[in-house]
Amino acid sequence: MFRTYTCGELRSSDAKKTVTLAGWVQRVRKMGGMTFVDIRDRYGITQLVFTDSNAELCEKANKLGREYVIQVIGEVAIRSSKNQNIPTGEIEIIVSQINILNEAKTPPFTIEDNTDGGDDIRMKYRYLDLRRSVVRANLELRHRIAFEVRRYLDTLGFMEVETPILIGSTPEGARDFVVPSRMNQGEFYALPQSPQTLKQLLMVSGFDRYFQIAKCFRDEDLRADRQPEFTQIDCEMSFIEQEDILQTFEGMMKHLFRFVKNIDFTEPFLRMTWHDAMKYYGSDKPDIRFEMKFVELKEAVSGHDFVVFDSADYVGGICAENCANYTRKQIDELTEFVKRPQIGAKGLVYIRCENDGSYKSSIDKFYSQDDLKLIAEKFSAHAGDLILILAGGQIKTQKALCELRLEIAGRLGLRNKEIFAPLWVIDFPLFEWDDETSRYYATHHPFTSPKPEDIHLLESNIGEVRANAYDMVINGVELGGGSIRIHDSKLQNKMFELLGFTPEKAQAQFGFLMNAFCYGAPPHGGLAFGLDRLVSLFAGLDSIRDCIAFPKNNSGRDVMLDAPGIIDDSQLDELALKIVKN
Amino acid sequence: MFRTYTCGELRSSDAKKTVTLAGWVQRVRKMGGMTFVDIRDRYGITQLVFTDSNAELCEKANKLGREYVIQVIGEVAIRSSKNQNIPTGEIEIIVSQINILNEAKTPPFTIEDNTDGGDDIRMKYRYLDLRRSVVRANLELRHRIAFEVRRYLDTLGFMEVETPILIGSTPEGARDFVVPSRMNQGEFYALPQSPQTLKQLLMVSGFDRYFQIAKCFRDEDLRADRQPEFTQIDCEMSFIEQEDILQTFEGMMKHLFRFVKNIDFTEPFLRMTWHDAMKYYGSDKPDIRFEMKFVELKEAVSGHDFVVFDSADYVGGICAENCANYTRKQIDELTEFVKRPQIGAKGLVYIRCENDGSYKSSIDKFYSQDDLKLIAEKFSAHAGDLILILAGGQIKTQKALCELRLEIAGRLGLRNKEIFAPLWVIDFPLFEWDDETSRYYATHHPFTSPKPEDIHLLESNIGEVRANAYDMVINGVELGGGSIRIHDSKLQNKMFELLGFTPEKAQAQFGFLMNAFCYGAPPHGGLAFGLDRLVSLFAGLDSIRDCIAFPKNNSGRDVMLDAPGIIDDSQLDELALKIVKN
Repeated sequence: MFRTYTCGELRSSDAKKTVTLAGWVQRVRKMGGMTFVDIRDRYGITQLVFTDSNAELCEKANKLGREYVIQVIGEVAIRSSKNQNIPTGEIEIIVSQINILNEAKTPPFTIEDNTDGGDDIRMKYRYLDLRRSVVRANLELRHRIAFEVRRYLDTLGFMEVETPILIGSTPEGARDFVVPSRMNQGEFYALPQSPQTLKQLLMVSGFDRYFQIAKCFRDEDLRADRQPEFTQIDCEMSFIEQEDILQTFEGMMKHLFRFVKNIDFTEPFLRMTWHDAMKYYGSDKPDIRFEMKFVELKEAVSGHDFVVFDSADYVGGICAENCANYTRKQIDELTEFVKRPQIGAKGLVYIRCENDGSYKSSIDKFYSQDDLKLIAEKFSAHAGDLILILAGGQIKTQKALCELRLEIAGRLGLRNKEIFAPLWVIDFPLFEWDDETSRYYATHHPFTSPKPEDIHLLESNIGEVRANAYDMVINGVELGGGSIRIHDSKLQNKMFELLGFTPEKAQAQFGFLMNAFCYGAPPHGGLAFGLDRLVSLFAGLDSIRDCIAFPKNNSGRDVMLDAPGIIDDSQLDELALKIVKN
Repeated sequence: MFRTYTCGELRSSDAKKTVTLAGWVQRVRKMGGMTFVDIRDRYGITQLVFTDSNAELCEKANKLGREYVIQVIGEVAIRSSKNQNIPTGEIEIIVSQINILNEAKTPPFTIEDNTDGGDDIRMKYRYLDLRRSVVRANLELRHRIAFEVRRYLDTLGFMEVETPILIGSTPEGARDFVVPSRMNQGEFYALPQSPQTLKQLLMVSGFDRYFQIAKCFRDEDLRADRQPEFTQIDCEMSFIEQEDILQTFEGMMKHLFRFVKNIDFTEPFLRMTWHDAMKYYGSDKPDIRFEMKFVELKEAVSGHDFVVFDSADYVGGICAENCANYTRKQIDELTEFVKRPQIGAKGLVYIRCENDGSYKSSIDKFYSQDDLKLIAEKFSAHAGDLILILAGGQIKTQKALCELRLEIAGRLGLRNKEIFAPLWVIDFPLFEWDDETSRYYATHHPFTSPKPEDIHLLESNIGEVRANAYDMVINGVELGGGSIRIHDSKLQNKMFELLGFTPEKAQAQFGFLMNAFCYGAPPHGGLAFGLDRLVSLFAGLDSIRDCIAFPKNNSGRDVMLDAPGIIDDSQLDELALKIVKN
């Protein structure tokens, strides 16, 4: 060992001890005849003191550069001026010996919580970026969460099973990454988008309770919160019903909050049907840290010759508490916000609930004070509140209203990252209609079970069929989701038929799973959580990139490793491949 | 929940309880008016009884097929004839209600510990093979080992960090699997052969104690104990010396033996230099469950006109205790064994230590009884022992003698799978000479540190330089290994020079790591264990395949998934690839 203590553990009770520390030079300050050096490691920072009583030593210290790796021997002393900001702030080390373990070039950005480095340079020198305690803390949190997930699930008898990374291509779904096979020229493995089918096979195998913290891969065009490789907490159980899954994984989340965030959730998590989520929040992943539910107004506002409302399928609004004092400029900003192409509303109607009990609105021409009062009552609005109303096609307007709600909540400081509001969204529709291709698709995947009480609707009104599917949503982030699977082959065949699969096509795509199901499939279901999202949420991050050690950029490149890259022609030959750029 | 108890937990103390069980039909027996059904799940087997007092129920039971999935309600009763072989053997369930959850086709092989299914069919229907409790037990063991590894390392402050699967190609080493990039046409990611360079970067980042249970990939031609994807317990530490690594991971192995196998190792593990391992066992991974050390005889046997010994570089033997009674036929078998091409000895000399104190040997013509006595004394051989001697080139003969030693030990029952003999092999040579290319290669990899006391030999006699490298060997299996890394860039450059790298080539291949080392690399080192091998060893398996849920065959195929497979032309187009078979 190059040290007897880490740079984070010495306290005043250690005074007079002779200690050896090792770490990186955080900074060097010369004050009078003394030199102060802050030495840093993963565990903290400790102040070193070099006094002019040893001139040679002092000179050595003065020559230290930032990020030099050093080892020092010295005596722990109580500081005269204590630093309350760090746990080691009560002590310093009077150094008697220093050993430079490695020199360092000056790093291209400062290794501080608030660094001067931009995104690009930090990614290129990610190994230096990871020295910053704010970044490392995210990865420590990630370790802790993964560990506690395992501890919780192990206690409940779940087995972690590693499923393969080199599997077969699944033609439906997102685009697969593929791996050419040298031993089977012209053929390709695919990297798993998720272990979905393999975990269902494990249920057929009688594994009963499976989980895996699994790497998954999707070759999609990337956004800020997407990575080509990501990590799922993937789980499946047999001989269970939806309620068992919800209980088990609500328990897991409570365990994580307790042991990682020190937050106790004693009450059951709220549950909301997909239908209500859409109706009251315009989203299947509502942020319920705050209320501000939608109020539907179509009926209340019709027949006043206001053509915008009269011609709209849907009129709905929210009540922004205590925002009646918003200026014209602020309301204009909100109007611009909802009119942005990605939101696409035509305009924004407001009603100010003035302190004198009167109403001031952008639709005064069409609605009397009494009319406005009736509308305000629907929101239970009080004097000082601001009502904001959108109108148009139902789905589009609900989505726009959802964005507006989140925007207002942000302005009102209602989206506090230290508050966590978990929610189960349940009763998803089994099918989604796609206008473009004029057909229904499986909302989740073709193995999701309909609710037994809705099975009769499969014949008559499949858009109304609800699934035994569920999502866990916290603070408007979909952290995970899953479903009870179909284990009855007759029902499965019906599903394939409804989804437009011929028996041959179903066999070609899902043959091995359907065959497996012929040999005694138990009732089963499960879910998967996005570990990256979960860590981001717990860490209060805006992007999953910050909780991944070596993330890729939006072009799928690792700029530190400079990957992907060119490979040798000889390797291409072995793989029977030729590059033919378009 | 479809059950109130599992099929493994009911005992006589549960008598009279009304219970619900769910599981698979193991077998159905009709005896008189009663029907007995064994129901199986992951946790065990329980006997169900259907009495003729309910004819309809009985008839239903008689129609059950093997592997049907059923749910039953019934009352726990004490059995009149108990089954001592299973934990639930004291009770049975008097069934009052049965619910067939799923029918099953007759499986293509029996779901029993001793199945009638061959390897190929079991691999094709791996999901049924995994129902066999002997196979599932291996995966339960794998889960338990991985969990205990994490528990031990977490306690010591190790952080598990996920490193990426899509990285850059490393031209040296085994062949990489590559992944064509769609967003960067003509370029390829590579799948990691190990996280070696990334974990060293994490040390540069100050992560101090890293581990990861990591998937690794090598596109090699496969043998029984190789898989294209395999799992490593990958570890690295900073500010440590070799002794710290040995202590830490000896501790891990003892923890695993204690908590997984219930075996306490109170003594330190033996340590042996590579030199001694080769000298006494002819192997860098000696099986030390038994002694039978090599005795070198060149000096003792020279000058007796026996040209085989006189002309040999090396003469060495082993003493097989109590084997003097081996017949001519048995000794011929051993001679054939060492003469097989893969072993390649020219012949085998034996000396029988007869009970009357005389010696009988195949070299009586050249050696007197006194000569043979002197030889026998070198082995401390007793009456009744059999001495076996090989001669030839040193390395080849030592390897052959190693094989012979293991063969004899096998015949003597000395390779008991329930006995574990752990060993550290240390002081590996830093370089290995390759006759074919007439140059030295790094035994481990170019970042392995020489022993400080041997650095001076780098200038004069590099074949003699020992590395700070170590392997953990148990029962002749190399379970893991690693080294202290070079953190000094001058020494690193020297290493590259000795390995024949130009500075340009070194930069091209290891640039990002060398650059990282310029910014303050701490002293560091680590090791990696093969999880598959570790589980196999603990489970007493002969192949790692049996502890992998979905392994690949020797052609790298997953015969269950039928992967690899053909992909669409459109996908090839997107990747700018064309298949050009040789």
